[in-house]
Amino acid sequence: MSLPDPLLRLIEELQHLPGIGPKGAQRLAFHILKTPREQTDALVGALRDVKERVTYCSICNNITEVDPCAYCSSDARDPKVICVVEEPQNVASVEKTREFKGVYHVLMGALSPLQGVGPDDLKIESLLARVDQGVAEVILATNPNVEGEATAIYLARLLKPLGVKVTRIAMGVPVGSDLEYADEVTMHKALEGRREV
Amino acid sequence: MSLPDPLLRLIEELQHLPGIGPKGAQRLAFHILKTPREQTDALVGALRDVKERVTYCSICNNITEVDPCAYCSSDARDPKVICVVEEPQNVASVEKTREFKGVYHVLMGALSPLQGVGPDDLKIESLLARVDQGVAEVILATNPNVEGEATAIYLARLLKPLGVKVTRIAMGVPVGSDLEYADEVTMHKALEGRREV
Repeated sequence: MSLPDPLLRLIEELQHLPGIGPKGAQRLAFHILKTPREQTDALVGALRDVKERVTYCSICNNITEVDPCAYCSSDARDPKVICVVEEPQNVASVEKTREFKGVYHVLMGALSPLQGVGPDDLKIESLLARVDQGVAEVILATNPNVEGEATAIYLARLLKPLGVKVTRIAMGVPVGSDLEYADEVTMHKALEGRREV
Repeated sequence: MSLPDPLLRLIEELQHLPGIGPKGAQRLAFHILKTPREQTDALVGALRDVKERVTYCSICNNITEVDPCAYCSSDARDPKVICVVEEPQNVASVEKTREFKGVYHVLMGALSPLQGVGPDDLKIESLLARVDQGVAEVILATNPNVEGEATAIYLARLLKPLGVKVTRIAMGVPVGSDLEYADEVTMHKALEGRREV
């Protein structure tokens, strides 16, 4: 006489999502039980559509509905400058600046020996192949953490012998923050990267 | 050149779920994009099944796959004792004690003038009809907050004239907690409800 089977199954499936534990899954499941049928149908449709219609660009691995993606096929973007990011969602972060006019390369992760992610698990070979075809600059925009930094160093060592300019995004204190809250590593990077004004 | 339409739609649909904001919805959507097709299919199937197979008991409004529910149709439960709770998930909380052997009545909410929930929005009439058919005790197990307390008082006023014993679950300091962290209202209830040892 516990919860009905379909509800237990939904609670279990919801727990596979990141950041959703047993309590959260139960709350969501009971919410779904209460919502009008049409709303659940809309969610189900959206889930299916994403799996059916969204794919990865065969050139840069960014998510897209058409292959190659809008960035790779655009005449307005400079294919000689490649910005390397870890995940598709990182493309949006760079785009927000409205300043970058080059193209992207999504690695689909970062090197992480602890999590068993090695060079072969990332889209590195296709990046090297692209650079081989003549690229002016590769901007390494992997995350400013241990894995992202290790990945950037690894890539730089592979890319430089190809004769391409390799740069890394600046690390330092974030704009609008307070020095009081800057950790020592960030502060160190900020001092190290200081510029004359 | 923003995110693909199906992904934007999924992010929007996910935001309809409680406790999931724009950032959380985006993180979930990108996760779903990455997971194997079978896992999303399992989630979709579970969502559909819950809407198709889980219904409400026509007697007590608890969730169930068969009507009447297992509690209402069980010979091992005493139909003369009804435990009134706000939501179907509250049934599980009472069942956890393994002590209650009566049946349930789910109100499907609590009185809340601020949220526009009045007596007509709750399953009160069917409760009165059940009590009318001869019930020994009604245990009011609505939540120990303002809405639950108001609902309990309202129900007690309706039920007592029917000649049924009406009780309210005890409120006090939770077992295993520390008095230091008890708020004044809980402490007040704990003192008020003190018993001789």
